[in-house]
Amino acid sequence: MDLFTKAYTYDTAKKAKQGGFYPYFHELSSKQDVLVEMEGHEVIMIGSNNYLGLTTHPEVIKASMEATEKYGTGVSGSRFLNGTLDLHLELEKDLAKFLGKEDATIFSTGYQSNLGFISAIAGRNDLIFSDKENHASIYDGIKLSYAEMIRYNHNDMDDLEKKLAAADPKKGKLIVTDGVFSMGGDLCKLPELVKLAKKYGARLMVDDAHGLGVMGKTGRGTAEHFDLMNEVDIVMGTFSKSLASSGGFIAGEKDVIEYIRHHSRPYIFNAAIPPSNTAAAHAALKVLMREPERVENLRKVSNYVREGLKSRGLKIRESITPIIPIFTYTPIRTMVACNTLFKNGVYVNPVVPPATAHGECLIRTSYMATHPKELLDKAMDTIVKVLNELPSEEEILKWKLQ
Amino acid sequence: MDLFTKAYTYDTAKKAKQGGFYPYFHELSSKQDVLVEMEGHEVIMIGSNNYLGLTTHPEVIKASMEATEKYGTGVSGSRFLNGTLDLHLELEKDLAKFLGKEDATIFSTGYQSNLGFISAIAGRNDLIFSDKENHASIYDGIKLSYAEMIRYNHNDMDDLEKKLAAADPKKGKLIVTDGVFSMGGDLCKLPELVKLAKKYGARLMVDDAHGLGVMGKTGRGTAEHFDLMNEVDIVMGTFSKSLASSGGFIAGEKDVIEYIRHHSRPYIFNAAIPPSNTAAAHAALKVLMREPERVENLRKVSNYVREGLKSRGLKIRESITPIIPIFTYTPIRTMVACNTLFKNGVYVNPVVPPATAHGECLIRTSYMATHPKELLDKAMDTIVKVLNELPSEEEILKWKLQ
Repeated sequence: MDLFTKAYTYDTAKKAKQGGFYPYFHELSSKQDVLVEMEGHEVIMIGSNNYLGLTTHPEVIKASMEATEKYGTGVSGSRFLNGTLDLHLELEKDLAKFLGKEDATIFSTGYQSNLGFISAIAGRNDLIFSDKENHASIYDGIKLSYAEMIRYNHNDMDDLEKKLAAADPKKGKLIVTDGVFSMGGDLCKLPELVKLAKKYGARLMVDDAHGLGVMGKTGRGTAEHFDLMNEVDIVMGTFSKSLASSGGFIAGEKDVIEYIRHHSRPYIFNAAIPPSNTAAAHAALKVLMREPERVENLRKVSNYVREGLKSRGLKIRESITPIIPIFTYTPIRTMVACNTLFKNGVYVNPVVPPATAHGECLIRTSYMATHPKELLDKAMDTIVKVLNELPSEEEILKWKLQ
Repeated sequence: MDLFTKAYTYDTAKKAKQGGFYPYFHELSSKQDVLVEMEGHEVIMIGSNNYLGLTTHPEVIKASMEATEKYGTGVSGSRFLNGTLDLHLELEKDLAKFLGKEDATIFSTGYQSNLGFISAIAGRNDLIFSDKENHASIYDGIKLSYAEMIRYNHNDMDDLEKKLAAADPKKGKLIVTDGVFSMGGDLCKLPELVKLAKKYGARLMVDDAHGLGVMGKTGRGTAEHFDLMNEVDIVMGTFSKSLASSGGFIAGEKDVIEYIRHHSRPYIFNAAIPPSNTAAAHAALKVLMREPERVENLRKVSNYVREGLKSRGLKIRESITPIIPIFTYTPIRTMVACNTLFKNGVYVNPVVPPATAHGECLIRTSYMATHPKELLDKAMDTIVKVLNELPSEEEILKWKLQ
């Protein structure tokens, strides 16, 4: 069998394109902002992770440009070898301080942060307890480690405790969870997780990609929200959401971070994050530290939309985050909804299998602290109109086949 | 057992620091260039992968800064969803054209390019034949796939053929190799690999991270060097070496690339590469296409150093690339050599176990098209002086213990 047969026979994307319900890879030709230009027309963006809207902040842009001017466009080498900039060390120091941790180290992507930490810290004799709805990069990190993965049902603390109690007490244990779950927008049950980790001698890691800059009074994330900042062993965060850049980090005890710096393959065998991205993330962090009211604005925007959608009669998945999923139930209906919304000037993301069950498909909408009310109203009105007029899955398929 | 015990008991780095032979994480506070500022003093850089020296090229810096100004500092989302810029598509088109392939797609890091291609294209019923000296990201990609890994001895075509012949003919097969091996600087045996791939129905992938912009008359890489550009199924390359940025790509047949776009987890579950890095890589590619003489300059520089080191009596590992390893034999001796060189104004990289066997340690030196002769002479004179005066491993250990 030719290795490429699977590629030659793959036609799902082609069929979706022919059917007019392919919702992926829209071409963006402007800044990532509340209003963007995509494929030649203006679209309200409620499908990014740009929670604080800082990718367009003049201070962030200026810092990034100045870093490129001073340090060039790349470092051409690993952090471990010739690629550690003073910029990296300064950002690491501020991240650790912001999160109340001893140390932090940064990676070139958020994906590699999870991959790089988990695969390095967990070995053959360790167990990793992972929430079933954790991000793909956590699963890939576990797969890359030699540890045994034990999945527990989403936010099901009884299930987790059962599995912890049944595990070999002699083995090293890591509980890993998203702080804010990226698709559903719900929070982990941090108080219970902290208790279980203590009771069973496990370490606790929170992937706060969607919590940093979003949760807690000052945007320090899910642990701040629960007032448990000292109880989480490892915080992972990314620069590609609230921090307006690309990259990620882990923060924790000095010894642990130092161990990662010398043992993590995705960290060592990888070129360091460039000056531009490092400076952008750092400038965004400084804005966040200086102006915590942005976090409150984001909360206001999210609550406004939550109330607005419900008062317009739509069924949403409840949350207290800026991620607000709206039920569309079946896959093709969901994709048609996304495409119709796009044509009507609103960008949202489809959540279809395998990301969710067949009958529970959603459109994932997500908001920015900088979204003005008039755009939100317009987006909500458009969503209501499109979803109310949306035909059933059967009707769409019948229509497509004619 | 506490999961973190391994971190608490790790003391190799601490001991090396105390002993004065810790050679990692030197802090850079300037552009990555032929001459850099590290830890407050000026150092000749012969330990980067900045082969064409384009990280400081005014055109590349300008393009990167302008992209940040126009598009902001990040896209806050996956290529798959809200994160595909026109900039990404334009770069992909030019990369495919440059390499004579139908299509290409870009990833946020070189590491994720290998991870993302290999883990997506190879499944449970496939076999991956991998050179023992391949880059870590290839190994991690194989581990992340469900395919079976079959390692063959470094550049040993008899060993590879034996293993191909013994393999199940019904299974999908991928042969994967570095084009230029990153530590040794030697080339893969592409003509033989092409023949074996054909004979046994395997697909051939070349990781040309260190070949792109380096090998072949016009820098199209290892396949151009061997005049076999149409015979390699998949070319992987990075932006963090010759292309002066950060990121990577794979190029190949349209159907295969399209399959990857819809199946690769490190591609989909990852924020897209930012405007700055995309524009920098594209500008560097344009410089390379317009001025192929830079590749010839790099070759001249490398040959000058190779001859210079040999005429100065040093034992090097022979190559035709800009990677020139110099034998230092034992680990601590190698690290002391790196540190002494650093103190004397020359940055090089140590190659110690597990990257190489105990008695075959090296200092890896690597060169740039823009290195002027006077800096090369100075670096070589310093290397000769330091290595000639370098004590034996036993003497160093005795001295350190006093």
